[in-house]
Amino acid sequence: MVKEKLKVGILGATGIVGQTYVKLLENHPFFDVTDVAASPRSAGKTFIEAVANRWHMKTKIPTKISSLKVRDTNDIESIDPNVKLVFSAVNLPNKEEIKKLEFDYARNGIPVISNNSAHRWTEDVPMVIPEINYEHLNVIPIQQKNRGFKKGFVVVKPNCSIQSYMTPLFALEQKGFIVKNVIVTTLQAVSGAGYPGVASLDIIDNVVPFIGGEEEKSEKEPLKVLGTINEKGISNRENLLISATCTRVPVTDGHTAVVYLKFEGKVPTKEEILEIWKSFHGPPQDFDLPLAPKQPITYLSENNRPQPIKDRDSDKGMAVTVGRLREDTIFDYKFVALSHNTIRGAAGGAILIGELLYQNEYFD
Amino acid sequence: MVKEKLKVGILGATGIVGQTYVKLLENHPFFDVTDVAASPRSAGKTFIEAVANRWHMKTKIPTKISSLKVRDTNDIESIDPNVKLVFSAVNLPNKEEIKKLEFDYARNGIPVISNNSAHRWTEDVPMVIPEINYEHLNVIPIQQKNRGFKKGFVVVKPNCSIQSYMTPLFALEQKGFIVKNVIVTTLQAVSGAGYPGVASLDIIDNVVPFIGGEEEKSEKEPLKVLGTINEKGISNRENLLISATCTRVPVTDGHTAVVYLKFEGKVPTKEEILEIWKSFHGPPQDFDLPLAPKQPITYLSENNRPQPIKDRDSDKGMAVTVGRLREDTIFDYKFVALSHNTIRGAAGGAILIGELLYQNEYFD
Amino acid sequence: MVKEKLKVGILGATGIVGQTYVKLLENHPFFDVTDVAASPRSAGKTFIEAVANRWHMKTKIPTKISSLKVRDTNDIESIDPNVKLVFSAVNLPNKEEIKKLEFDYARNGIPVISNNSAHRWTEDVPMVIPEINYEHLNVIPIQQKNRGFKKGFVVVKPNCSIQSYMTPLFALEQKGFIVKNVIVTTLQAVSGAGYPGVASLDIIDNVVPFIGGEEEKSEKEPLKVLGTINEKGISNRENLLISATCTRVPVTDGHTAVVYLKFEGKVPTKEEILEIWKSFHGPPQDFDLPLAPKQPITYLSENNRPQPIKDRDSDKGMAVTVGRLREDTIFDYKFVALSHNTIRGAAGGAILIGELLYQNEYFD
Amino acid sequence: MVKEKLKVGILGATGIVGQTYVKLLENHPFFDVTDVAASPRSAGKTFIEAVANRWHMKTKIPTKISSLKVRDTNDIESIDPNVKLVFSAVNLPNKEEIKKLEFDYARNGIPVISNNSAHRWTEDVPMVIPEINYEHLNVIPIQQKNRGFKKGFVVVKPNCSIQSYMTPLFALEQKGFIVKNVIVTTLQAVSGAGYPGVASLDIIDNVVPFIGGEEEKSEKEPLKVLGTINEKGISNRENLLISATCTRVPVTDGHTAVVYLKFEGKVPTKEEILEIWKSFHGPPQDFDLPLAPKQPITYLSENNRPQPIKDRDSDKGMAVTVGRLREDTIFDYKFVALSHNTIRGAAGGAILIGELLYQNEYFD
Repeated sequence: MVKEKLKVGILGATGIVGQTYVKLLENHPFFDVTDVAASPRSAGKTFIEAVANRWHMKTKIPTKISSLKVRDTNDIESIDPNVKLVFSAVNLPNKEEIKKLEFDYARNGIPVISNNSAHRWTEDVPMVIPEINYEHLNVIPIQQKNRGFKKGFVVVKPNCSIQSYMTPLFALEQKGFIVKNVIVTTLQAVSGAGYPGVASLDIIDNVVPFIGGEEEKSEKEPLKVLGTINEKGISNRENLLISATCTRVPVTDGHTAVVYLKFEGKVPTKEEILEIWKSFHGPPQDFDLPLAPKQPITYLSENNRPQPIKDRDSDKGMAVTVGRLREDTIFDYKFVALSHNTIRGAAGGAILIGELLYQNEYFD
Repeated sequence: MVKEKLKVGILGATGIVGQTYVKLLENHPFFDVTDVAASPRSAGKTFIEAVANRWHMKTKIPTKISSLKVRDTNDIESIDPNVKLVFSAVNLPNKEEIKKLEFDYARNGIPVISNNSAHRWTEDVPMVIPEINYEHLNVIPIQQKNRGFKKGFVVVKPNCSIQSYMTPLFALEQKGFIVKNVIVTTLQAVSGAGYPGVASLDIIDNVVPFIGGEEEKSEKEPLKVLGTINEKGISNRENLLISATCTRVPVTDGHTAVVYLKFEGKVPTKEEILEIWKSFHGPPQDFDLPLAPKQPITYLSENNRPQPIKDRDSDKGMAVTVGRLREDTIFDYKFVALSHNTIRGAAGGAILIGELLYQNEYFD
Repeated sequence: MVKEKLKVGILGATGIVGQTYVKLLENHPFFDVTDVAASPRSAGKTFIEAVANRWHMKTKIPTKISSLKVRDTNDIESIDPNVKLVFSAVNLPNKEEIKKLEFDYARNGIPVISNNSAHRWTEDVPMVIPEINYEHLNVIPIQQKNRGFKKGFVVVKPNCSIQSYMTPLFALEQKGFIVKNVIVTTLQAVSGAGYPGVASLDIIDNVVPFIGGEEEKSEKEPLKVLGTINEKGISNRENLLISATCTRVPVTDGHTAVVYLKFEGKVPTKEEILEIWKSFHGPPQDFDLPLAPKQPITYLSENNRPQPIKDRDSDKGMAVTVGRLREDTIFDYKFVALSHNTIRGAAGGAILIGELLYQNEYFD
Repeated sequence: MVKEKLKVGILGATGIVGQTYVKLLENHPFFDVTDVAASPRSAGKTFIEAVANRWHMKTKIPTKISSLKVRDTNDIESIDPNVKLVFSAVNLPNKEEIKKLEFDYARNGIPVISNNSAHRWTEDVPMVIPEINYEHLNVIPIQQKNRGFKKGFVVVKPNCSIQSYMTPLFALEQKGFIVKNVIVTTLQAVSGAGYPGVASLDIIDNVVPFIGGEEEKSEKEPLKVLGTINEKGISNRENLLISATCTRVPVTDGHTAVVYLKFEGKVPTKEEILEIWKSFHGPPQDFDLPLAPKQPITYLSENNRPQPIKDRDSDKGMAVTVGRLREDTIFDYKFVALSHNTIRGAAGGAILIGELLYQNEYFD
């Protein structure tokens, strides 16, 4: 029996992540966007009016979405009761307001999958990379019980800066090689700052060696992603230290990471690592989910890869590309990894969570 | 008594480093460029003809240099006997040819200060950063004796990629804090590859995570710079491990380095480090040499500095700018450093060696 | 009856235009690439070896092509006799050699469709934009007779710099509005110069207001495209003056043109122009050719369009996008036009000629 | 007798033009900045606090200015009565408010030289390029009489987009060659939009073929600059038509213009034009004013010049550089011109007006 498409909404639909949702969900086999919500300033306009002169995708606005009337994100009651899931890309200065808003949707019976960082440290909110910690979705019933939610819940995805190396690192741990220390320097794209985001005067012919809050996220979020479920939610992974320096470079899309790894105990050979990465797969691949990359970790043997312009769009922008794996004299290994920050690192990563939940009948 | 200006030549004068020499030596108080040499293709032309449509400096070609006839670099005999020093920016594919050429000039009585990497690992050729290992100039008599040179000799400067962090690191060692491990990721400017160098199609909106030979130089050259004199030349510094990843970014000038430091034994406090860097000076400052930066290590306390566009030209492009010093959870400290690769990292660094030698009466 | 796919070759297959052919012909319904030829340096290698580290397309090398052995372009005899058409992207410094080479293929029975400028001014070689002067293909029999070719012939496409405004201009002429004067300033992408092409040091943060030979091509080639057939070949269009200034800007792909038009006699209204552009179509659309854009002239009403990043890939990179049509106080109208220089302006434009010839049974 | 330095203020001192004033006035021989004013948000802070993390100049904040307390621009009464001149770079959305504010300063006895466009079309406010229409300063007494100002007055400078070709055009007219038609396409730098201004996502790898309001200014302002004084102010030049298309390119500083000229009557030869440009000078040169370029129009004979990176800083950023002068088939001549938009085109141009007024004893 063919399942019917699920009606879904997008909160913060007019921003750059919101637009990426709109683009990626066009003709999606599971989801049908019937609700777009944004700030009060956009509310009441059609979507095409609301994004006039600021549609940043390279494909056109899907005709069906163009004429949707934009709803005020804050007006939860106004949502069509047939909408069974919302993807959240809301972006308010006050994190507490976002937390409340996302929980209010959940309380109102609407599951929320969010890009926003507000709930990442809420203990009973899972922070999920579908190939890694899909089991954390089992926290959802705990959350619903804790919060008194009936059908709604909140799931979040981690920061875009960690996407390129978390899967390669996890793949090794899955095979019993325990990582103890990670030193990472990121070279991040301007789209990570949203729109208008980084001023051109700040970045043409330049590098900015600082991105507010990004290093803390890069150092802490992996600990929750690799954490374990307890009765109240997720406990952080222990005995793993990550140290990050995050820089901004004149690249539109695609975050590059230079990664140094040190293991605790057994150290894999280079051949073992390459084989582990090559054969790695998770539930998205096993279920052949629509947005799942066929090869989640793609290793490139040319010594000048991965590169943003050549590799960011790899497998619909959902694959992580890795290169330059070398034994290190101080740590054990070093390599370079890349992922598309607005696709795998934002909207695409969230949709993949949605696909996994849909596959597993989480929505009624 | 005012010393007379020394007549000097430039080998490889038409390339990008050669041109930087021409620019920096305009109106120099010690040196007077009277000889320009380049490949046979340019030989016989006036300098202005030889660089037609490929003069890359932002100032004009000095009038006096414009009309100099370009000499064939290989034709050593043709040099004006009044020239007492040549700066070498020759760039031939074959390193052995360059070694021979530079030694031939020395044998012919002409001291050579070179940017080229050919002689960096010749044991009796000092590789000098004037603020750090000026004492290595004492190897010159050993070299002259070994090689049978009468007045000539060869001195080289190390690679541009290490300039930004070597002085900060040395300043700490000078005060008794011994560095054991360095992990460094560089974000290097395209001018480091010369002209035409990096193709625009390879770097617009991109990062290339590899620069041929650069990581080896970054890992090994500091060991010689920090080495000690023995009876045959220089012995490498021991017990220091450096691990480097070198990337190319869409920046014209200015190499940025993200640096992690681990000490052996005593670890300085953050305040001690800042104070050591602030008060650091070497012979170039003590002699107030023309191209010496007043403050060789300039620490910027803003969290988004140093940046290439704002800081590369700091103190005539000769200062190293440093920022973001933070205690690290895995190593002891991390910071970001920047230096101008074609000035401090190439022509300017070589001229500063020349100035120090001139000040110390090394030229007859 | 389904026609069999035609076996085709690519001359100069390893350069940037050659690679674009390889990419665009992957899974092509009419053509099957079975022959790749390049310079003697690449000959004998597999295609993947020959383009190692210089494959510039964002998609992967088609598996089938990877393992093809590269043939020496100059060795005409070595071509598989089953190859019925070659696309030429050869790039030799000597135009006379290219002329001879392309005619030698034709003489050998192989039709040639070329991007190279060598034969553009050969009177009996048609220079074709399929939507405009498809009738010039009728010169082929004249050429075959003149040259003693049996089955072979040479057809060329005009320069990339004129593609964005020639179709809009022709569409108006087709409806009886005669253009007398065109003043055009182009802002051209770096990929137009091939690879390595424009040095990054020349174009980051810069504009170069000159491209060798480009203005002459922009001023003269339209006259042949709009010319008429005579018994010896093509006579240029008369009474049309074009004046061009061609600049290079820091854009990877997509040439922008700022165009001023003055008519002879009757002047269309703005509404008429928009309607003419909207409804314009030619044989590629009528035959629904595989690479034909559905809407060859796409007018965008937003005042800040067309833009390279948003519009160059419009309709597979084959549509011309136009915007900012305004009445002018000195001329009659001004507007801005954009086309993808390596797709519509090079390989894609040539393939479209091939598709039209295939559709019309020009190959045996 | 050495004149004392004049105490001056800067309105809108924290923006990008305001900062350029601060930089250019450091150690100025005529002017001493003792007053900095900005929006209420900055008022009360020291200058260094007010521009924290947004100082965009490449030189450091002058020490003396760092510690100045920022005044609220709107609080006219609070200005030190010893300030005898203010440079205005205020930037409010409402032009009427700016008009009032600048006149209020004038009414309060403070002369104002402004970059803002608000008063450009006020008939009795001269809009001055010092080399061209210095005689328009004679409108000041008319303005004072009209408005009841005693010592104050307002003078403005025209838009940055016209600076590169107005002087070359005027130089020809001064010698009796009357320009009738100008078609100009500009390729403008992002700094022209202020800070944060153009978003990096809008301009990396892109061209935006529209800048709001810029074409109207480019077409109309030259008519006032070339106008004549009447009893009420300035009458526009007649019989000159200018048509402009203004685009934004990925360049930080330096506006390039591609210019087509058609004369009424007598047409100069190419040699005459070059000679006229070479020998052109105006009062700034005659008085040898501090910021006056020695050679206001610098013609470069290389065919790939002028270029922003090589020529924008020509003669302190105050010279106009011109190249590629060619006879045209449709108009009479075409050429390319460049000027630094934030120096000659903004703060530097205004300071030069101030220097001319100071030289001519306009301040008490």
